Amino acid sequence: MTSQKEPQEGLSAPAKVTGPSSWSRVSCPCCISSHIEPLVLIQLAENIQPITKQWIMSVISAPVKAGGAQLLVHPGEDMKGDMIVVAAPRCTLLRVTEDLGLCKTYQDGNMTSFSFEDRDNFCDSDNMQQFLTLAERQYIVKHELDSMRAMEDQRIPGIPAPKGKLKSRESILQKLEKAGVIRNITPLHKQKLLSDLGKQWYSHKSMWGQPLDTIHAYFGGTIAYYFSFLDFYTLSLFPPAVLGIFITFFLPSANFSSGNQTESAPGPPKDGDDQPSVSSYMVQAVFSMLWSTVFMELWKRRSAALSYRWGTFNLAEQFQEPRPGFHGELGTNPVTGRLEPLFPEWKRSLRIGLVSLPVVGVFLGLVVMGMGGFYFFERLISNWHKASGSYLTVPLLYIPSVSHIIYTNALGNIYRNVALKLTEAENHREESSFDYHHTTKVLVFTFFNNFAVLFHIAFFKEDMPLLRKRLSSLLIVTQLVNQFTEVVVPFLVDRFLTSADRNLKEDDPEVDHLQAQGSLPAFPGLFAEYIELLVQFGYLSLFSCVYPLTAPLLLLNNLTEIRTDAYKLCKLFNKPFSAPVANMGVWQTAFEMLSFISVISNCWLLLLSPRVKELTEDAGLSSSKVLVIAIIVEHALIIMKMILAFMIPDEPDWVRIKREQIEYQSMQALKKQRIMRSRVADKVPLKA
Amino acid sequence: MTSQKEPQEGLSAPAKVTGPSSWSRVSCPCCISSHIEPLVLIQLAENIQPITKQWIMSVISAPVKAGGAQLLVHPGEDMKGDMIVVAAPRCTLLRVTEDLGLCKTYQDGNMTSFSFEDRDNFCDSDNMQQFLTLAERQYIVKHELDSMRAMEDQRIPGIPAPKGKLKSRESILQKLEKAGVIRNITPLHKQKLLSDLGKQWYSHKSMWGQPLDTIHAYFGGTIAYYFSFLDFYTLSLFPPAVLGIFITFFLPSANFSSGNQTESAPGPPKDGDDQPSVSSYMVQAVFSMLWSTVFMELWKRRSAALSYRWGTFNLAEQFQEPRPGFHGELGTNPVTGRLEPLFPEWKRSLRIGLVSLPVVGVFLGLVVMGMGGFYFFERLISNWHKASGSYLTVPLLYIPSVSHIIYTNALGNIYRNVALKLTEAENHREESSFDYHHTTKVLVFTFFNNFAVLFHIAFFKEDMPLLRKRLSSLLIVTQLVNQFTEVVVPFLVDRFLTSADRNLKEDDPEVDHLQAQGSLPAFPGLFAEYIELLVQFGYLSLFSCVYPLTAPLLLLNNLTEIRTDAYKLCKLFNKPFSAPVANMGVWQTAFEMLSFISVISNCWLLLLSPRVKELTEDAGLSSSKVLVIAIIVEHALIIMKMILAFMIPDEPDWVRIKREQIEYQSMQALKKQRIMRSRVADKVPLKA
Repeated sequence: MTSQKEPQEGLSAPAKVTGPSSWSRVSCPCCISSHIEPLVLIQLAENIQPITKQWIMSVISAPVKAGGAQLLVHPGEDMKGDMIVVAAPRCTLLRVTEDLGLCKTYQDGNMTSFSFEDRDNFCDSDNMQQFLTLAERQYIVKHELDSMRAMEDQRIPGIPAPKGKLKSRESILQKLEKAGVIRNITPLHKQKLLSDLGKQWYSHKSMWGQPLDTIHAYFGGTIAYYFSFLDFYTLSLFPPAVLGIFITFFLPSANFSSGNQTESAPGPPKDGDDQPSVSSYMVQAVFSMLWSTVFMELWKRRSAALSYRWGTFNLAEQFQEPRPGFHGELGTNPVTGRLEPLFPEWKRSLRIGLVSLPVVGVFLGLVVMGMGGFYFFERLISNWHKASGSYLTVPLLYIPSVSHIIYTNALGNIYRNVALKLTEAENHREESSFDYHHTTKVLVFTFFNNFAVLFHIAFFKEDMPLLRKRLSSLLIVTQLVNQFTEVVVPFLVDRFLTSADRNLKEDDPEVDHLQAQGSLPAFPGLFAEYIELLVQFGYLSLFSCVYPLTAPLLLLNNLTEIRTDAYKLCKLFNKPFSAPVANMGVWQTAFEMLSFISVISNCWLLLLSPRVKELTEDAGLSSSKVLVIAIIVEHALIIMKMILAFMIPDEPDWVRIKREQIEYQSMQALKKQRIMRSRVADKVPLKA
Repeated sequence: MTSQKEPQEGLSAPAKVTGPSSWSRVSCPCCISSHIEPLVLIQLAENIQPITKQWIMSVISAPVKAGGAQLLVHPGEDMKGDMIVVAAPRCTLLRVTEDLGLCKTYQDGNMTSFSFEDRDNFCDSDNMQQFLTLAERQYIVKHELDSMRAMEDQRIPGIPAPKGKLKSRESILQKLEKAGVIRNITPLHKQKLLSDLGKQWYSHKSMWGQPLDTIHAYFGGTIAYYFSFLDFYTLSLFPPAVLGIFITFFLPSANFSSGNQTESAPGPPKDGDDQPSVSSYMVQAVFSMLWSTVFMELWKRRSAALSYRWGTFNLAEQFQEPRPGFHGELGTNPVTGRLEPLFPEWKRSLRIGLVSLPVVGVFLGLVVMGMGGFYFFERLISNWHKASGSYLTVPLLYIPSVSHIIYTNALGNIYRNVALKLTEAENHREESSFDYHHTTKVLVFTFFNNFAVLFHIAFFKEDMPLLRKRLSSLLIVTQLVNQFTEVVVPFLVDRFLTSADRNLKEDDPEVDHLQAQGSLPAFPGLFAEYIELLVQFGYLSLFSCVYPLTAPLLLLNNLTEIRTDAYKLCKLFNKPFSAPVANMGVWQTAFEMLSFISVISNCWLLLLSPRVKELTEDAGLSSSKVLVIAIIVEHALIIMKMILAFMIPDEPDWVRIKREQIEYQSMQALKKQRIMRSRVADKVPLKA
């Protein structure tokens, strides 16, 4: 853990310039501290009036009861500057730690849900740099900024009427962002920690292992989970990679010599002579099924262990304030007793089922239609071209592909907007559930877009050589494109464009350092990273029996992927906020679904492979007999998979015991509490 | 609720004879009561020595700390009699109510986990007949008898050495049952309550509705759940019954006239002319899928509501003492801190996966082999008979069927023993988990036995007319057999054999009444009842599109089933113990699995139906094209089913809110408790 180094740094560099004197007042005596650690940078629009900036700063530093965030603010250079630096007093940090349901080390050594009243019994609760990770502190600031709400109808000073009108209970931050007053909110980097992390991470000599705890401390939950998964996945690729290489190069019956050929260019399809043999097909299919199941189950265990280690196994999002975009009739939450907007669950279910699902379905249908149209017009035009025999019709041959690409892109863009709108209309109470539904929508579409063609080739055209060629070229092209966009481009950008930041020296004004941090592009989120892994995993588990070299190629790709992702995250983007999470969320489900579908896919691929067809014809089996056998095999494999998944517990025993301990203790505590209360009530009789 | 009538009765009939004077002493002052309600009857072997009886009674009435059950005992007539009547003092009842995690009405009107210390704030906690239902009181006695354990190595007086030796921590009751000292343990009936219940229930004039709360109060959780499910299921059969009748008799394109014919005797198979049309096939298949999904989801909601109503939604079996048969190394339970045998989860998983599963698989294989052998020898012998043309070989024709029946029965009996042994070897800690695994094993086998032939006809022979005939005759024969065994036989038995009981009059000695109660046969459990429903549900959901009259026939059957089951339970058997449960347990899963399988089955049945085959041939589709379409339809239907299941929440909103309230309050209480503790610790510093 590098968090031990933070206090010194907190005292040195930033505190020097943005000294305690220019920070807003600390409201409670216990939070007064000799140094204040700047955590988050708010960038305002350039033409903002000092009165507006003043108002924003006063709201942020106001107590929670007055609708503020109870944070510390610093105006940067002066009131005219376009930034606000935000820090957090100890009390706010501790209070929100409890609200989030984060677990911290208790004096008995167990990870325990933090309780503000009981703070003295938690280890390190007097030293915020030790107690909370940097990412947690920054997320807490963001969380508090997000939950600022107007207490009554009011106007934002210095902003004209329609934009500057705040209704009661409206989210202040959302309003300011919509009005264009706030350009950007970024957590601040700590250069020393960052360069230490970078050394351990991507400039690291050893190939294996990432400093996951340090990543978690510096970048936070979602990002740490992504890298943990990437790490685990890469390691898990070894067995299939070894098998793939063995089948391709060493299995005598394979007759598989086109491995190198496909790497240069997809040649004309041959008549199934370079196909792997039936036995290697079957070995690969069964292995792939077992592997994907065991891999996902072991990852679940690892994920549970990580969430205990990182104190996120008991997050209580449903008991928190709803997310800023949530709306509904104001009422008393029946569970927590707090006043907040309420929205019935059944309405949400109805909207999901009757609006979102059909709309997504229509878009998927449009993808299929597009593909169908493409094949139809391609055939039409190529026939026409053949018939005419003229060179004038050659350009026409490109029309179908070009219009298909344009159609797909346009559809994708429209869909992205529609997905966001739909998810907003579903009105989710929790941020995580919003993310879940939003990501699912985009994910399904992206996945469909990626695999529709492959499924078409596999199951409609039943053209295995073509499928193999398409798969190998996809893998190699994707890899090359990735290497280029993720290594070369970032490197060039880093070298020549963003070097402004680098040239700043230690003795330049602190403010310039801050300014430079805000100038990088915003981190685009992990969606693209995860979907890349998911699509890869899809190639591997759905079709690997067609092209055994998939796994080794993916392994190679991932080994570089880890470094480039790390480099990108550290150097090329603004630091992102990253919420404490207990697992990969929707991605967990997506990978599991895929490993389920892979059983089905592998089974039918096997059935459709020409060799198996020959075999069954030789054996004199009628096609419906073969069909029955295939159904039975498919369903038996699915049952096997479920049994295997059931046999590997989802969390390690020690995590389960810790969880049950907490459950048991809470149950006991609730009973004790009721007794205490009734005793108090007996002593102080209620007035009738 | 009839529980309001109980106190009077408790005072009148039984207390008169087995008056308070001859009961064992009550150990705590608060439990002294003017009347003692006899709850459970223990029947001893006839030749038992008074010294043994004395010892058993002393153990049962000993305090828990001394390894006893802290119950009240009465020797029946005198020390020589072969029975012990057991009652429970208030303190024991309340203590075990807390141990079981039962919820009772708190003073604020919410169902709340009972807490002994806080007993005064629960409604009616001073009146046990009001506070706990009769079934709960009796179950508590059973629970306490079960948990009596020897505190040290000792001998049971009056029993010779090998049988009478008790090892430390051995279950005393198990030992006594194994040694043949205890013949039987039965909860006692209350004749007045029983006849009231009977009137409401099976002699009831209206067809609909059962007195579920009264059933729950009198017979207890598992039985009440069975009848609630039966009730709900019967009601749910209306829509498919109406559709079935409509398709059979009113759909013009159906050409379905053999409905009456099949009822008399299965005629020779015709060439698919009396098949329902494709459209009715499809309507039936899609409807069946939707119906089974909605039915199961709505039942889950109802089940959740019932478990709240009956106070069993927060049972804490994992925090209780392990079940008597559980063994392992003695250690401290890491969760509750109690000393008890421990057995690691992974060992159990290994035993399930590597021993139980393969063994069950082998037995299923043997069933299939038996069926294969039957068909093989039947064909062989009938060919041989035809070839010989002699009448002498006619008896030989029966050999395959007869030997198949013998084989199946023998296999079934062996399997039942094996299943019990396997489940014991799995060493489950909780009774419910033991039941779950044991029932699953028997269930899978029984189900397989029932459906293997039908699946064989449907998917291998692909003989739809034969399937339809088999199904209709199965349904009608099963129904007739059921009606006979469940109505006629019980009625006769009741009239002529067990009338001894009836002839006892009010003024006969109480002891004879008790003796008579023990003399009825033991209730065989709900397995047979549930499996009947499951197999029926299987006929309906798996094959109903082949024989649309399934649903109306089942509806008829169930309407009588409810009455006969009720009559049987009240009159013909000893009252069973019935644990408080939160749902149907394994049967819930079994019905859900079946409704899942039904999608697959219906889909392939549709594909294999001759009409569809003709249709696809006419359309010029190749068999692999049809296959691809069928796969897509099947998987799309499964996805639809999953979406539908997802859209209907598993518990009603009000139950969810109650559950979350408890969760939230426990979380808060745990935090409060830690603070209290640390304050106490501050005041009384630990000595180092």
